[in-house]
Amino acid sequence: MSLQKPSIPKGTRDFSPLEMVRRNYIFDTIRSVFQLFGYQPIETPAMENLSTLLGKYGEEGDKLLFKILNSGNFLERRNDEQRSTKDPESKTENPASSIQHPASDPGQLDYKALLPFISEKGLRYDLTVPFARYVVQHQNEITFPFKRYQIQPVWRADRPQKGRYREFFQCDVDVIGSDSLLNEVELLQVVDKVFTLLGLSYIVKLNNRKILSGIAEVIGEPGRLIDLTVSLDKMEKTGMAPVLEELRQKGFTPASVDALIPFLDFASEKDFPVCLPFLKEKLQSSATGREGIGEIEKIVAYLNELPLSGRVELDISLARGLNYYTGCIIEVKAADVQMGSICGGGRYDDLTGIFGLKGVSGVGISFGADRIYDVMNELNLFPGMIEATTKVLFVNFGMAEEKYCLPILARLRESGIPAEIFPDAAKMKKQLDYANRKKIPFVVLVGENEMKEGRMTLKNMHTGEQELVTLELLIEKLVN
Amino acid sequence: MSLQKPSIPKGTRDFSPLEMVRRNYIFDTIRSVFQLFGYQPIETPAMENLSTLLGKYGEEGDKLLFKILNSGNFLERRNDEQRSTKDPESKTENPASSIQHPASDPGQLDYKALLPFISEKGLRYDLTVPFARYVVQHQNEITFPFKRYQIQPVWRADRPQKGRYREFFQCDVDVIGSDSLLNEVELLQVVDKVFTLLGLSYIVKLNNRKILSGIAEVIGEPGRLIDLTVSLDKMEKTGMAPVLEELRQKGFTPASVDALIPFLDFASEKDFPVCLPFLKEKLQSSATGREGIGEIEKIVAYLNELPLSGRVELDISLARGLNYYTGCIIEVKAADVQMGSICGGGRYDDLTGIFGLKGVSGVGISFGADRIYDVMNELNLFPGMIEATTKVLFVNFGMAEEKYCLPILARLRESGIPAEIFPDAAKMKKQLDYANRKKIPFVVLVGENEMKEGRMTLKNMHTGEQELVTLELLIEKLVN
Repeated sequence: MSLQKPSIPKGTRDFSPLEMVRRNYIFDTIRSVFQLFGYQPIETPAMENLSTLLGKYGEEGDKLLFKILNSGNFLERRNDEQRSTKDPESKTENPASSIQHPASDPGQLDYKALLPFISEKGLRYDLTVPFARYVVQHQNEITFPFKRYQIQPVWRADRPQKGRYREFFQCDVDVIGSDSLLNEVELLQVVDKVFTLLGLSYIVKLNNRKILSGIAEVIGEPGRLIDLTVSLDKMEKTGMAPVLEELRQKGFTPASVDALIPFLDFASEKDFPVCLPFLKEKLQSSATGREGIGEIEKIVAYLNELPLSGRVELDISLARGLNYYTGCIIEVKAADVQMGSICGGGRYDDLTGIFGLKGVSGVGISFGADRIYDVMNELNLFPGMIEATTKVLFVNFGMAEEKYCLPILARLRESGIPAEIFPDAAKMKKQLDYANRKKIPFVVLVGENEMKEGRMTLKNMHTGEQELVTLELLIEKLVN
Repeated sequence: MSLQKPSIPKGTRDFSPLEMVRRNYIFDTIRSVFQLFGYQPIETPAMENLSTLLGKYGEEGDKLLFKILNSGNFLERRNDEQRSTKDPESKTENPASSIQHPASDPGQLDYKALLPFISEKGLRYDLTVPFARYVVQHQNEITFPFKRYQIQPVWRADRPQKGRYREFFQCDVDVIGSDSLLNEVELLQVVDKVFTLLGLSYIVKLNNRKILSGIAEVIGEPGRLIDLTVSLDKMEKTGMAPVLEELRQKGFTPASVDALIPFLDFASEKDFPVCLPFLKEKLQSSATGREGIGEIEKIVAYLNELPLSGRVELDISLARGLNYYTGCIIEVKAADVQMGSICGGGRYDDLTGIFGLKGVSGVGISFGADRIYDVMNELNLFPGMIEATTKVLFVNFGMAEEKYCLPILARLRESGIPAEIFPDAAKMKKQLDYANRKKIPFVVLVGENEMKEGRMTLKNMHTGEQELVTLELLIEKLVN
C-alpha cells in the first residue's frame, strides 16, 4: 500500500455538505410535487444487461455506455473456447471460433471480437429505457395507468466539460398506459408547481411530433422525419441557414428545402393564437399534421382554465433528439439565465415494444437536477435557512459539564431540534469557530454558575446577544 | 433491435412502489436521526479510480470489485504500444513491452497483463474508503471534527444468495478528527434513536480491538492480532473448537491456544460488571489491554447516565473483519429475529493515512438498510399508513366534470393533499379498482347533480361510506 495522491475519475464529482443540502432541497421539492400528483417511486439497478441498453440510444449512445468488466478471469473462458475449436474431435459449432489473430502479427487483438467475452453489463444511461424494461418485466404486478417517478444517477462516457458530467442525476416522471391528453396537462402542472416552489421563472416550449410529420409530408419528404428533426434540433443554436444546408446535404430536394423556409421563418412566432391558424392552413393536407395541431389546441384549452405561472410557447423548431417521441414534446428553460433546457420530455407510443409489450402509450418528462442547481446558484435562489444543519452547539467545558448537558441535548432532540455538543473540551475559540464554520446559529454555554442556577447561557451567533434561559425557554426559542 | 425478454443482472433488484415507500421510510428515519445529531451529508461518485480501491479490502475484496471497461478501443492503445516496442528506433522504455504471448500458442491471452489496459475505474465497494479519500482530498475545506453521513449504494461482485446482493445501500455515519469517547457514546445514541423510531428491539455488542490486542499479548502471540481476530470472528457461527483448530493450523503454539480457552469460555458472559473485573485481572500485564478496558468502562459510565432502550453487551469474541479498526468496535443485532448484524462499526486511528493524511482518528458505524428492511418485514413493523401515496382519487366522468374538478384538485394540492384524477373517463369499476390497487383511501365523485349543487360525494374506500361535502369540508377531512 503506497502513498497515493487522492483524486476521482474525470467528469465525476464529490458533493460537500453545503452542495448536498442544496441538492437535497431541489430533490425534495421535486419529489414532494411528484407525490402530490399521485406518482409513485420505483428504482432500478445501476447495472443493466448490455442487451437491454445496446441499440436504444443510437450508435453514438452505444459508444457512451460505461461497460462493466465480467468478474473472474474472463479470458480463461475465451481461451478455453478457442482451444476447443482447434480440437478436431470437437463437433459443437462455436461462435468464438471466428476470433483469430492475423498470422502476420500474433500480438494484435481484435477489440470487437474480444468484447463479448469481456463485458455483459453496463451502467444505466438514462431512466427511460430501464423504466420501459421494468414495465414489461413487471406488467402483471403494475396498476395501469402507471404513474411513476424515479430519481437516480445515470452515467455517460461523454467528454467532460463545463456543466456536462459523466455521472449525473435524472428526475423522471411518467404516466404509462393512458393516451389521455390530461396527462400532458398534468405534467405541465407538475413543471409549474416544481419551479414555483423553487422560485424559478421558466418558459415552456411545446411542439408535437405529428406537426413535424405533417411538415415533412407537405414539403414532400414524408419518409424523412428523423433526418428533418435531427437537423431542426440545431436551429436554435445555429440559425436557419446551416439547417437548410444540412438538409440539402442529406439529399432533401431543393423544392422541399424551399418549402420548409416559411415554417422556419415562422418559428420565431411563439403565440398560439397566431401560430395555430398558420399551421392549420399550411398543414391542412396532412391528416397527421391536423391531429398534432388538434392535440396542441386541446392542451391550450386546458391551460386557459388552469393557467401556469410561466409562459407557454409553441416552438415548431423544437424537435428533441430522441426518436421514440410520437406526440407532444415539451421543453422547459429558465427565463432569467442562458442555460440549456432544465426539463424536457414528451409522449411515446411504443417505448415498451422493444421489450415485447406493444401498443402502450406513455408520456413523461425529466428534470435535470444539475442544470436546475446551476440556475438557482447563479440567481441566488437557495434559501439561506436550509444551510444550517445543526440548530445549536453546546460548548464542551469538561466532564462535569458534559454530564450535565447530555440529558439536555437528548431533550432537545426529542423536540426535533438538531443539536450537538463539541466532543472535546477544546479551547473556546476553536469551538466557536466550529459553530461559525458549520453555520450553527445558536451556541449554549453551561459552566459552573449555570449548573448551580439550573440555567443555560444561549448565545445568538448572528447578533452576539446572550441570555440566561431555562430548558423550557431554550426549547421554545429553538423549536419551529 | 430484436425482441428481448427483459431481465436484470443477477444479484440486482428492481424496487416497486410499495418496496420504495418502505425503504424510504427506513432511509428517511435514519437520515432524520443523523441530522438531529448534527451530522452533515456528503456524496461521492459511484466510480472511483481503481488505485483508490485496490488493496484496501484484502485480496478477496480486490476480486469482488466491479471494474469499468475503459472507453473507446483500449486495445488500440495496447497494440500501438506493443508495436512501438518492436521498433528498434524506439528509445522510450515501455512497461507494456512485457506483454507477450507464449510463442507456442499465439491465441492465448494473459489476463493479468491485459487488465491495466482494459480498466482504470471501479464501482465503490463500501463508503468508508471513498470517505477517507474524500477527507484527504478536501482536508482544507473541511471543519474538523467532521461529522458526516453518507447514504449511497455500493457494489460487490459477490456470489448472490438469499439476503446478499450485488448492489445494496449503506448508511454510514462517522466523526473524524476527534478521539473523544463521547463520539462512541453519541453513535450508540444514534443507534438507539434510529431503532426506537423504527420500533425495532435491538442488542448492541461492544468490544475493543485493544482488548483483543491484550489477549494476543497475554497468550504469547503479540504479533498475530489479525490472525487471531479473523478466526475469532467465526466463533459465533462455529463455536469454540473450530476456532482453536484454525489457530493451531495457523501456527499458534499449543500453549497460546490453551491460554486462549479461558477467554473463549468466558465469551458467553456478556454483563459488564462480571466481564470487566475478569478481563482486568487477566490482562493486567498488557498496557494496551488495560487501555481497551478503560475505554469500555468510560463508555459504560456514560450509558449509565443516558440509558439506551436496547441491551448493551460486552462480547470479546466480536472482532469484525476489517483490519482498520483500532479501538472500540460495535455491532447491533435485532433482538427478535435471527439475522446477521443490522449495524456495525468502530474506531479507526489511521484510515486516511493511506491517502497521505496521518494521525487522524475517527469512529463510525454503518446501517444495513437491506437487513433492516428484512427484519421489519418479518416482524410486520411497517406502519400501514405509509403505503398510501395518494390520499384521494377523483373519478373521471368526462370533459365537463374534468373541467369542474381540475381547479378543485389544484386547491387540494395547495393544501398539501396528494390528489389525482383518473386520466380517462373509463368505466367506474376500472377507476375504483385503480384506487383499491393503489390503496388510495378516498374517492371523490362529481356528476351532474354535484356540479349543480356545488358539492362533491366523498367515498371512504375502507368503510364504503359516502357523504356530500363542500370543498372546505373536503380539505378538512383529507388534510393531515
